[in-house]
Amino acid sequence: MSKLIYLDNAATTSVRPEVFEAMKPYYLENYSNPSSVYSFAGEAKKAMEDARKVIADSLGAAATEIYFTGGGSESDNWVLKGVAEAYQSKGKHIITSRIEHHAVLHTCEYLEKHGYEITYLDVDENGIVKLDELEKAITPETILISVMFANNEIGSIQPIKEIGAIAKEHGILFHTDAVQAFGQVPINVDELGIDMLSSSGHKLNGPKGIGFLYIRKGVKIRSFVHGGAQERKRRAGTENVPGIVGYGVAAERAVRTMKERTDKEIQVRDHFIDRILKEIPYVKLNGDRTKRLPNNVNVSFQFIEGESMLLMLDNYGVCASSGSACTSGSLDPSHVLLAIGLPHEIAHGSLRMTLSEETTMEDADFVVDKLKEIVAYLRSMSPFYEDFIKKQKN
Amino acid sequence: MSKLIYLDNAATTSVRPEVFEAMKPYYLENYSNPSSVYSFAGEAKKAMEDARKVIADSLGAAATEIYFTGGGSESDNWVLKGVAEAYQSKGKHIITSRIEHHAVLHTCEYLEKHGYEITYLDVDENGIVKLDELEKAITPETILISVMFANNEIGSIQPIKEIGAIAKEHGILFHTDAVQAFGQVPINVDELGIDMLSSSGHKLNGPKGIGFLYIRKGVKIRSFVHGGAQERKRRAGTENVPGIVGYGVAAERAVRTMKERTDKEIQVRDHFIDRILKEIPYVKLNGDRTKRLPNNVNVSFQFIEGESMLLMLDNYGVCASSGSACTSGSLDPSHVLLAIGLPHEIAHGSLRMTLSEETTMEDADFVVDKLKEIVAYLRSMSPFYEDFIKKQKN
Repeated sequence: MSKLIYLDNAATTSVRPEVFEAMKPYYLENYSNPSSVYSFAGEAKKAMEDARKVIADSLGAAATEIYFTGGGSESDNWVLKGVAEAYQSKGKHIITSRIEHHAVLHTCEYLEKHGYEITYLDVDENGIVKLDELEKAITPETILISVMFANNEIGSIQPIKEIGAIAKEHGILFHTDAVQAFGQVPINVDELGIDMLSSSGHKLNGPKGIGFLYIRKGVKIRSFVHGGAQERKRRAGTENVPGIVGYGVAAERAVRTMKERTDKEIQVRDHFIDRILKEIPYVKLNGDRTKRLPNNVNVSFQFIEGESMLLMLDNYGVCASSGSACTSGSLDPSHVLLAIGLPHEIAHGSLRMTLSEETTMEDADFVVDKLKEIVAYLRSMSPFYEDFIKKQKN
Repeated sequence: MSKLIYLDNAATTSVRPEVFEAMKPYYLENYSNPSSVYSFAGEAKKAMEDARKVIADSLGAAATEIYFTGGGSESDNWVLKGVAEAYQSKGKHIITSRIEHHAVLHTCEYLEKHGYEITYLDVDENGIVKLDELEKAITPETILISVMFANNEIGSIQPIKEIGAIAKEHGILFHTDAVQAFGQVPINVDELGIDMLSSSGHKLNGPKGIGFLYIRKGVKIRSFVHGGAQERKRRAGTENVPGIVGYGVAAERAVRTMKERTDKEIQVRDHFIDRILKEIPYVKLNGDRTKRLPNNVNVSFQFIEGESMLLMLDNYGVCASSGSACTSGSLDPSHVLLAIGLPHEIAHGSLRMTLSEETTMEDADFVVDKLKEIVAYLRSMSPFYEDFIKKQKN
């Protein structure tokens, strides 16, 4: 196999060596339960609180507003169920979008079965929520707006500040799933009017199995994991100190290096997109051209299957995705691609490539060169393509 | 500070070097999301499935019956809420005990607020559930019995096989929180009639932030964390591959070395208990003398405060606990000690010391010697002790 070209950083990222080194002593030496009273626990507790502070600072939040969880999915489940329960006397209506991660969508479906009403906002052809539809959806019963910061499949970045302003104007809480955005785009919860925010460590070169939920001071929320008094009595379970420490280091670095890192990613991303659009026919870029995560490339190739492209790219050591890895195993086309209006047959021919700071122009060129061959080859075997060409000729 | 003597292994344990080494490559090299389709994901997926198999084998279960979670608390929350919801058409009655971990008790309180009826079984003076009370508590509405395998504070081991048989006889599901027991006592889910079992990695020299729930094939359970299709569509969220791998190594070792390791722990434990009971007056052992976790010492010293003992032991580098670390911050005496009938003032003077295979006879002797001094010193300042002695003299 040739060199590995890992273009699936929206699925997960490598843990950076400095993150791993920072975690190490909390496995082997300072392994104490941070809630214990003896001095040996002090180092673990301090490291945990330092990480909390670093993460809070990076969002313009207070450390007491950061609650560690087991990951982004838990954070999303918590916020939706916890707010729904805490505010049900005010109303049972929640607004979200059609292109949320399944951790939000499936939790909303769960809430629907429990008497809540959910409005799923449509998005435009670039995957951006329509603000006028949001305004229209609000009722006196609306208790929560949950719209993701940036989409995991097509990278589209939502008008978060505008949504925050609308929520505030109507006295409605605003949650954003920032699992893809945190560390990739600047976020200040006050400036953007965000009341709650979900994030996950392993999307920004931190460890898997750790996430957080930012909860603005004053917001009522029921617990999701009941038990011990950890996390200011809001989230039970022995704190994952090494995971928290690693998350802190990863978040600090991601925010500190954001400008330089994402400038480079944007350059490679745009080169990728430009070459594909120019050199491969019958192709469509999914997601907004500019309101887009720095590392996201998502394109649909007509007449072929995304899965076949993946397997052929794999032969060249290229790791990509045809949708969200979380939903692999399903043959349905991505709900996100359907929501932006792609017909089933085109959605099936989609490819997501999500870069890291280590992805080079040479990598991009290599992959585009191979893609050209692969697409041509797969189309040469495609009855749909054959039909299409025949019709063109007539 | 003198050498560290860590006697809080029921709160958490150190990660063993071989566990850490096994996890390492899944942070730095094979960091892939195991649900991805490219070959690079194969190694992560295989390692995860190997760990699942090792854990399943150690319980006499099938690999497809092991579901990884974010920890013991999540497992307990999941099983109670998930079974309650799945079986509510059969009935809304659950039986548990008064001495469960808060992850079970607080989840039961949550369910009570949602229309479920919970019976909390009393325990005898040694912290053992009374089987005749269990039989009497069963109604046609009973859907679940949840009784912990071994208690986290006083180490008492429940008659799990008998409970399993009673549950089976009445066609009721049986869950056991084995967070303290797994790796410490032999467990075979078929022989013991266990339908669901919770465990946590960091209690057996594995990492924090990872747990599992064993769910017997055929048991219906609703999801707790909704989202992606991971864990056979039952528990969403990117799999914590390093955590799972570390858990597998820790579990395999714990089970393989159980006999030798716990034989040694029992020797040290009994030496500990014998010396304390013999050499310190006005002291009581909490929990059963023999139906007891190999590494648990829990004693109440009359006339003094557990917290003061902890602080003075800390000066000698000894880490112990006065209750469950999960509930530190609370001044109420332990619900477990009250349930076995201790008066408040005696429950307040309790000390838990939980050994590891590394705890030596010399450690035990050192700690008991210091305890004798500490107890004498604290009593010399105690007005209760003064009163008591005066009355004795009259």
